[in-house]
Amino acid sequence: MAQQNIYDNGTFFEGYQKLRQREANANNLFEIPERFALLPDLTGLRILDLGCGTGEHEKDYINMGAKEVVGIDISDNMLEVARTKNNDSRITYIKMSMEDLGKLEGEFDLVVSALAINYIEDFEGVVRNVNRLLVMNGEFIFSQEHPVNTCNSGKERWTKDENGVKIHANLTNYAVEGERDTVWFVDNVKIYHRKISTVINSLVDAGFAIEKLAEPVPSEEILEKYPEYYDLKHKPDFLLVKARKTNNI
Amino acid sequence: MAQQNIYDNGTFFEGYQKLRQREANANNLFEIPERFALLPDLTGLRILDLGCGTGEHEKDYINMGAKEVVGIDISDNMLEVARTKNNDSRITYIKMSMEDLGKLEGEFDLVVSALAINYIEDFEGVVRNVNRLLVMNGEFIFSQEHPVNTCNSGKERWTKDENGVKIHANLTNYAVEGERDTVWFVDNVKIYHRKISTVINSLVDAGFAIEKLAEPVPSEEILEKYPEYYDLKHKPDFLLVKARKTNNI
Repeated sequence: MAQQNIYDNGTFFEGYQKLRQREANANNLFEIPERFALLPDLTGLRILDLGCGTGEHEKDYINMGAKEVVGIDISDNMLEVARTKNNDSRITYIKMSMEDLGKLEGEFDLVVSALAINYIEDFEGVVRNVNRLLVMNGEFIFSQEHPVNTCNSGKERWTKDENGVKIHANLTNYAVEGERDTVWFVDNVKIYHRKISTVINSLVDAGFAIEKLAEPVPSEEILEKYPEYYDLKHKPDFLLVKARKTNNI
Repeated sequence: MAQQNIYDNGTFFEGYQKLRQREANANNLFEIPERFALLPDLTGLRILDLGCGTGEHEKDYINMGAKEVVGIDISDNMLEVARTKNNDSRITYIKMSMEDLGKLEGEFDLVVSALAINYIEDFEGVVRNVNRLLVMNGEFIFSQEHPVNTCNSGKERWTKDENGVKIHANLTNYAVEGERDTVWFVDNVKIYHRKISTVINSLVDAGFAIEKLAEPVPSEEILEKYPEYYDLKHKPDFLLVKARKTNNI
């Protein structure tokens, strides 16, 4: 399987870094707070982070009491930033694709992943490996692009009125799973669309109990400050899942 | 809470009956087969059906080996048909709203509900009562209108091209939960929209483990016979949930 490493494309990486530096973006306002809210007490936990990127959260997890954190990512660019800016003796960065997770050995109390799952074709393979790497009752907490968002990637996602106001999101091919080409700073970023039922059923079949789903949208407080995020009330950008390993497979 | 009983509106009931008599409609092609596929072996089971309508499935469940079936519905019209056409000593029909489920006593191995949940404002109250009425490890299997369908009820659901071909579904206010007025044979049919995360989290919080989700869409075989259902690939009409009681609440 060809592994996509869009983060080592120079144009992409530059655009991505600028995005992540902005004070208010959808990640910072909605995805990150929701993901952190789903986390258990991290004290003493061994954590694996799938698609750790620049390691910005590895340091957070250590500060929140984690015993050790292993972050894997496929991008040299990302890992170079991680090793420079977010270095700690309790953090290990490994260059590895989630699709090669079968090669990783270890035992973890918590596996996390932020907005990386959509780059992976074989989600089922990943969750089976997450099960193998987790202790019994260990948790898997991840965020992904919402399926109503990924389904029509690469097409115009919104219908706007004559004043440019988004009146509805355009939902197409929700039931047609698989590869999508999308544009994010550069052309041909490949992501994989899966129905929400496929996500949930893959987890259940791989020995997980679903503990919580989240589809974060702006609070009234945030809308007052950033009214442009009203659109998320029409179509959530993110889906977050908290699942617990209840069976070996 | 005012209980809506649209099925006792004459115009609605006539339209509904015609719809259900058609050989090929979305219910018959997608919702019913998927729901039956989720059922366990019914031999010896005590079944409760929430919103049993005309009792067409109560007889099926008995024929499939169920020991007894209790069907509740709020509509006299529906129950009259049920008692006439689908009468059996092992079937009990009760006029009752799901919202009054707290008044029902009994012990069931399986609770089913077909496309009735969206009429209910207090879903949480219903699932807590379902938990109470189920034996431990008993199952709750229900279908509902898909949340991507209920969110913009009452508005135009599709954008069509100049030839009238549906090019995308219009997704609005997915994150705005609550009452919707819709038009189904008659005006002002009230339904309640809930995000998929709310549906799942309500079940988990009420002591259920999610066993399977289904979002049925047409097979290639069905599309060949009924090409008009291609639209469902853009936007599934139905969401089905199979959950197991794993905790008392």
